[in-house]
Amino acid sequence: MFLTEFLTCKHMTTQEAFYNYIVRLGDDSLILGQRLSEWCGHGPVLEEDIALTNIALDLIGQTNNLYELAVSIENKGKNIDQLAFLRLEKEYENLLLVEQPNVDFGYTIVRQFFFDLYRKLVFEALCNSTDERLAGIAEKSLKETKYHLKHTSEWIIRLGDGTEESHQRIQEAVNFHWRFTQELFFQNDVDSTLIELGIGIDLTTLFDDWKKYVSNVLQQATLELPSHSFKLEGGRTGMHSEHLGYLLAEMQYMQRAFPNLTW
Amino acid sequence: MFLTEFLTCKHMTTQEAFYNYIVRLGDDSLILGQRLSEWCGHGPVLEEDIALTNIALDLIGQTNNLYELAVSIENKGKNIDQLAFLRLEKEYENLLLVEQPNVDFGYTIVRQFFFDLYRKLVFEALCNSTDERLAGIAEKSLKETKYHLKHTSEWIIRLGDGTEESHQRIQEAVNFHWRFTQELFFQNDVDSTLIELGIGIDLTTLFDDWKKYVSNVLQQATLELPSHSFKLEGGRTGMHSEHLGYLLAEMQYMQRAFPNLTW
Repeated sequence: MFLTEFLTCKHMTTQEAFYNYIVRLGDDSLILGQRLSEWCGHGPVLEEDIALTNIALDLIGQTNNLYELAVSIENKGKNIDQLAFLRLEKEYENLLLVEQPNVDFGYTIVRQFFFDLYRKLVFEALCNSTDERLAGIAEKSLKETKYHLKHTSEWIIRLGDGTEESHQRIQEAVNFHWRFTQELFFQNDVDSTLIELGIGIDLTTLFDDWKKYVSNVLQQATLELPSHSFKLEGGRTGMHSEHLGYLLAEMQYMQRAFPNLTW
Repeated sequence: MFLTEFLTCKHMTTQEAFYNYIVRLGDDSLILGQRLSEWCGHGPVLEEDIALTNIALDLIGQTNNLYELAVSIENKGKNIDQLAFLRLEKEYENLLLVEQPNVDFGYTIVRQFFFDLYRKLVFEALCNSTDERLAGIAEKSLKETKYHLKHTSEWIIRLGDGTEESHQRIQEAVNFHWRFTQELFFQNDVDSTLIELGIGIDLTTLFDDWKKYVSNVLQQATLELPSHSFKLEGGRTGMHSEHLGYLLAEMQYMQRAFPNLTW
């Protein structure tokens, strides 16, 4: 496939665009869920260990529902396990943000906060999708996502307005992840096709609300909104950071070593 | 296979024991080579980056020769690539020492020092193996191993007898890896079968020389020989630390994703 086709989906049918749209939503939560699950047994306190692992489970659950919908839209010869575990790196279209390493609790919380807020706005809008199945998943997922966002917003404030060290470290994490936030609103022909059909949403309409909420929370946390304009994109077109390969190697090991493994 | 058979090789033919003996030698250098290769592009200084990567290459080269010999002894239906990349975790019989994480340069050098010295003594003894092919590999490998040992011994002294911080960190690394050194001299029926044939060597005869050399280098480095007696074993019988699984997931990814891949 040539890069131009990859970017513009020139030869994509509506059905293929819909499939792609849903898989992309699922990829975000799959990769972030896998990343978060690395915290299991390593949380800073027991309650937070359980919270992070529960959020990871919610994300994997959302992925499950989304992939099931995708497979019902278009049969690409892959069931949901194969979608999750048997694609190559460049076939995943998740955001660069969600594949970034955990680093420490501060980095993890900032990454999650940026994503939860974005995901909440996306699901709120998708509740009005003309596709009832997608609207149903959005409604169900919105409930848990609101809880995730509450949890991470509180942590941002608590750590930002905490000790000198926690303030400095959370500010550093905000500055680091800022470069990946422009991609949250990336759109290509997949989106425009779905927007026209009333199935998908125009992400650009969510940006102001996203920015306003972030500004508000950072202000409460005595943190600064980064002013640098260095931004990175690529995940949505399969061009990932070095971190995704390692994550996939680990995540895919079982299905690669024992193809068609079932419980 | 029952655990008892696993440990005692009750039903093993001489040929199978020889195969196993050689694969084990190859597993040590494969896993350590893979681990060391993680330093490529991350060394503390350019010269050391190149040195570590060269040592990694030597180790992979040794593995290559050893696996080729193994495959010529007994056809287990696996070529050398399949031996390297398509076994499951418990089928690798490398030492626990070599699968330990790099952590920092100090940890990496101590792990390498303990291994280089052991490997040098093993190859010196194997030069007298009644199997000419094995003696040939030993002779060839001994040359590079002596260089590796010189390199790591010098680093131990330089870091131990360096700054306060380098001294403290290298001592910590010595203390950490000490627990894996007893396993260097692990023997079971595979060894006794090969010793009887004059092909293999009695590792227990190497222990005094190993300890003496270590003591000498640590003394020059103003470091202390650990006094604790906490020792771990398992690698030689396929019972590995948590670290090997992650290493294998990464190392095996290409062959798992593209079975029978060739250059």
